Amino acid sequence: MGYKVEIGVSNKHLHLCREHIDLLFGKGHELTRLKGITQPGQFACEEKVDLEGPKGVIKGMRVLGPARSETQVELALTDARGIGVKVPIRESGKLEGTPGGCRLIGPMGSVELTHGVIAALRHIHLSAEEALEAGVSNEEIVSVRINGNGERALIFEDVMIRSGEGHFREMHIDTDEGNAAGCCTGDLAEIIKG
Amino acid sequence: MGYKVEIGVSNKHLHLCREHIDLLFGKGHELTRLKGITQPGQFACEEKVDLEGPKGVIKGMRVLGPARSETQVELALTDARGIGVKVPIRESGKLEGTPGGCRLIGPMGSVELTHGVIAALRHIHLSAEEALEAGVSNEEIVSVRINGNGERALIFEDVMIRSGEGHFREMHIDTDEGNAAGCCTGDLAEIIKG
Repeated sequence: MGYKVEIGVSNKHLHLCREHIDLLFGKGHELTRLKGITQPGQFACEEKVDLEGPKGVIKGMRVLGPARSETQVELALTDARGIGVKVPIRESGKLEGTPGGCRLIGPMGSVELTHGVIAALRHIHLSAEEALEAGVSNEEIVSVRINGNGERALIFEDVMIRSGEGHFREMHIDTDEGNAAGCCTGDLAEIIKG
Repeated sequence: MGYKVEIGVSNKHLHLCREHIDLLFGKGHELTRLKGITQPGQFACEEKVDLEGPKGVIKGMRVLGPARSETQVELALTDARGIGVKVPIRESGKLEGTPGGCRLIGPMGSVELTHGVIAALRHIHLSAEEALEAGVSNEEIVSVRINGNGERALIFEDVMIRSGEGHFREMHIDTDEGNAAGCCTGDLAEIIKG
């Protein structure tokens, strides 16, 4: 049996840089922690923004904190098509050459994004100890089997390991991927190739 | 190498029974053929209807013809969640015990559905000759690898073979599944376990 990891199905969300927080929520605004998420130091915020694309608007998208050096919008491909934007599959934080083409709308102002709209590359967070135990290393690409509810089992290839300081065991997939596997947050995934 | 099949990514759509065509489009209305689809005798219609659930409406969902003995609405799980309905994964035509909870709205009237709203079980259509060549039989469950664009390769388990008269080689998955695999209609899938 392979190493087991709990799944977290990520709904569309975004991370904001300091400048964009100022523009959307007012100069010097501090993000309000709603609740912690599994990854240490990160949190869901009270703040939400609208995302306007060429063909539609996503209302009330959740902001995750803390502030980052660059704004990053993470959509499932279904979400992206719904507002008429074409987004690449990217590792979080690797935003070079990614498209913008959307406008963020907050209570105090709006921002035209020039880049940073992506679909997240599916990945597994592991602490250094957990990676050792699983026999995998940071940035390794593995395959993962998900049994889901037993009606839509599948094996995801192209799953990146993200391991080290600040990571806690959890597999992140988006809503399209969660639905394709018939699984929910809290279900287990199994690393079958390390 | 396994047997190769072209993928068709199915967008949300519906099939209508005679009674519901009358109620939505007027007594005796005949569905208007827009264009043929890959499966012999079936066609996309000019007609569209709105689907209203407890939490939202999907506007302009495409009707597929010809008329069937029972109305069947096929949604991706993302679509279903968007309008607030929970749907089971079902083989097309096997509608016993499936939920309704939605209203179809056409130009001449509306219909409260008592059942028939599903997410389709992923499946492969094959003619009898193609099934023989692939080494699989009708209703067999197989696994299928999709390389997609090479960034989101995966292996779908729980794929049903539907073979015989009236079937033509094509793998049907929904938009969630297509996005999870990073693939499009026309890409190739490979049966890796017959």
